[in-house]
Amino acid sequence: MDYGKLALEKHKELRGKIALALKDQLDSRDKLSIYYTPGVGAVSTYVAEHPEEARDYTWLNNNVGVISDGSAVLGLGDIGPYGALPVMEGKAMLFKHFAGIDAVPIVLDVHTADEIVAAVRAIAPSFGGINLEDIAAPLCFEVEERLKADLPIPVMHDDQHGTAIVTLAGLINACKITKRDLGKSRIVLIGAGAAGVAIAKLLHHYAKPEIIAVDSKGVITRQRTDLNEEKRLLASFNTLPHDGYNPKNLREALKGADIVIGVSKAGMLLREDVSVMAKDPIIFAMANPVPEIMPDVAHAAGVAVMATGRSDFPNQVNNALAFPGIFRGALDNRVRTITDEHKVAAAKAIAALVDQPDAQHIIPSVLDDRLVAAVSAVIV
Amino acid sequence: MDYGKLALEKHKELRGKIALALKDQLDSRDKLSIYYTPGVGAVSTYVAEHPEEARDYTWLNNNVGVISDGSAVLGLGDIGPYGALPVMEGKAMLFKHFAGIDAVPIVLDVHTADEIVAAVRAIAPSFGGINLEDIAAPLCFEVEERLKADLPIPVMHDDQHGTAIVTLAGLINACKITKRDLGKSRIVLIGAGAAGVAIAKLLHHYAKPEIIAVDSKGVITRQRTDLNEEKRLLASFNTLPHDGYNPKNLREALKGADIVIGVSKAGMLLREDVSVMAKDPIIFAMANPVPEIMPDVAHAAGVAVMATGRSDFPNQVNNALAFPGIFRGALDNRVRTITDEHKVAAAKAIAALVDQPDAQHIIPSVLDDRLVAAVSAVIV
Repeated sequence: MDYGKLALEKHKELRGKIALALKDQLDSRDKLSIYYTPGVGAVSTYVAEHPEEARDYTWLNNNVGVISDGSAVLGLGDIGPYGALPVMEGKAMLFKHFAGIDAVPIVLDVHTADEIVAAVRAIAPSFGGINLEDIAAPLCFEVEERLKADLPIPVMHDDQHGTAIVTLAGLINACKITKRDLGKSRIVLIGAGAAGVAIAKLLHHYAKPEIIAVDSKGVITRQRTDLNEEKRLLASFNTLPHDGYNPKNLREALKGADIVIGVSKAGMLLREDVSVMAKDPIIFAMANPVPEIMPDVAHAAGVAVMATGRSDFPNQVNNALAFPGIFRGALDNRVRTITDEHKVAAAKAIAALVDQPDAQHIIPSVLDDRLVAAVSAVIV
Repeated sequence: MDYGKLALEKHKELRGKIALALKDQLDSRDKLSIYYTPGVGAVSTYVAEHPEEARDYTWLNNNVGVISDGSAVLGLGDIGPYGALPVMEGKAMLFKHFAGIDAVPIVLDVHTADEIVAAVRAIAPSFGGINLEDIAAPLCFEVEERLKADLPIPVMHDDQHGTAIVTLAGLINACKITKRDLGKSRIVLIGAGAAGVAIAKLLHHYAKPEIIAVDSKGVITRQRTDLNEEKRLLASFNTLPHDGYNPKNLREALKGADIVIGVSKAGMLLREDVSVMAKDPIIFAMANPVPEIMPDVAHAAGVAVMATGRSDFPNQVNNALAFPGIFRGALDNRVRTITDEHKVAAAKAIAALVDQPDAQHIIPSVLDDRLVAAVSAVIV
């Protein structure tokens, strides 16, 4: 099916895909007087005096701002706020459909960390939580950290942590199938953008495996002098050289590796690259829309477990497995900060929904209706 | 009925009064692929290349940001963003109910003109129009002017212009009843805040009547040295002294006045004040919740036509008569700037809906279902 063509047609036909709904109808003068003036004055007075109860009298208990500056939209790059808006409306649909959350798309016409932080801080009282979306690395790291520190509501950059949570969930089951201890595995990470950095941080927090990260300039080591703060962190997860292992590039790094995690671009892995990995290797090739290596090629080269970002292959690493339940739990349980412990617990909860993992089933379907309850239950 | 008590109960029961609605359901993998990835990528690419068509593919054609910093909420004053939120949610309900517009409440945690302008500019691509609400004077004047100059979408501070439009509509009919020429009338304006300034500006634009504005310090004249820019403008509408008329205070100003417009506070007008006005005077006493003078007192003192801001008296000056149609028209007709000509046309359209004006009927009911069509038709 040509989804792009269908999408253009449906979006134009509907003129956008979300709308406002009223929880009660304004079908009488009394209703007007209750929901607007003069009645609402009593509510405003009460909430102003008890701001911690605002969520009980407004939609703050159930809404999330989905906020992007449009600087890293899908695989399309920096296409600006208008280009980002259809994706943010789509994300709002997912929030509502999967978790019943009233999400509000906000696209920003500012592009420095200071400006983005200032804008989001300014509008923050409008929301019960903030889902940052499609903000380019390395800006996204600073923006998220500053907002998390400043705001009394949960803030999560989903491109980082949603992806990291679902990746960890899949790896937990993939290791079970291939009888690996994740903490004793050697992982090659291709791509050190938002998702790559977050995945590495979460894996390190979870099990401290050896992680050899590779960016467009080669292996990320402490010897490199061109590293930003986040890449220096990645270098610290890499204990090279040791045991005679001191790869200079991706090809060398793959020798004997247990796991490859690709968050880069199509064609980064060839069949012969994979054949030098350890026995029964695991590959998560998550470049979109075309993965680093196609599943049939990988399996032919001996890969035991394969995941991608695509819905038309088994084992789709899809953020939608995580973020609806994460925010549902955070809103319901008044969680102010999504911690690494929450992320690990969410990953375990997602992994546990696969009753009998096998190579084709390490990650539940995004349509699994147990997901939101399972994930939200651990965000406490 | 105790609307405050009912409002507290209903708001708590419903936990806010608005929600997100989806224009189509995500009930299949195909729908997910059309409204989110991968299909939405084609929409984002197209919109990024044709931003002027963004409104055809997103909800921009039908949404309005209802934005407040909470500095002048109803009659409650500066109660902050959380206190403002119930009012903004209520306003969003009115937008949806009366005009089918998907309004989004945004409350700001910043309070200087520079910060408010920066925040609204930053989020402006998220909206098809911006309704500023409950921002205190004189900040509101600068904020609105700067945003109107900067943004490619309609921006209107409703406390100013909504009130001014409906006031003019009422005065058109009140002058008809009392056989007055508005341009040759002497008007005393009590209160020089957001609404007062906007009313004076619109009346001046419409008919250049004599306007004697009075603030808490007395009559606003060019001789005063304590005036901000907007009050200096009000002073320019006042040609005093002339014809031996040089009132020093409100009591003196009322002598022989044709019209009093009150946007101040309860009790500013006594029966004996009104008795010195011209024959068959007109009084718009719009302080909320208690008007400057009660209608029965005014009528007993000889007032011919009386309007208030209240729904339980005849002739309610209610912004909801204007703003739904204003924004409906601006969105549908791609109007980028709401001009004085638009405001006058809207006032005339509202006035014309009263078939046979009499003292009890100068303003249509807010429930008149012809309103939005009549107003939106002139916003072109």
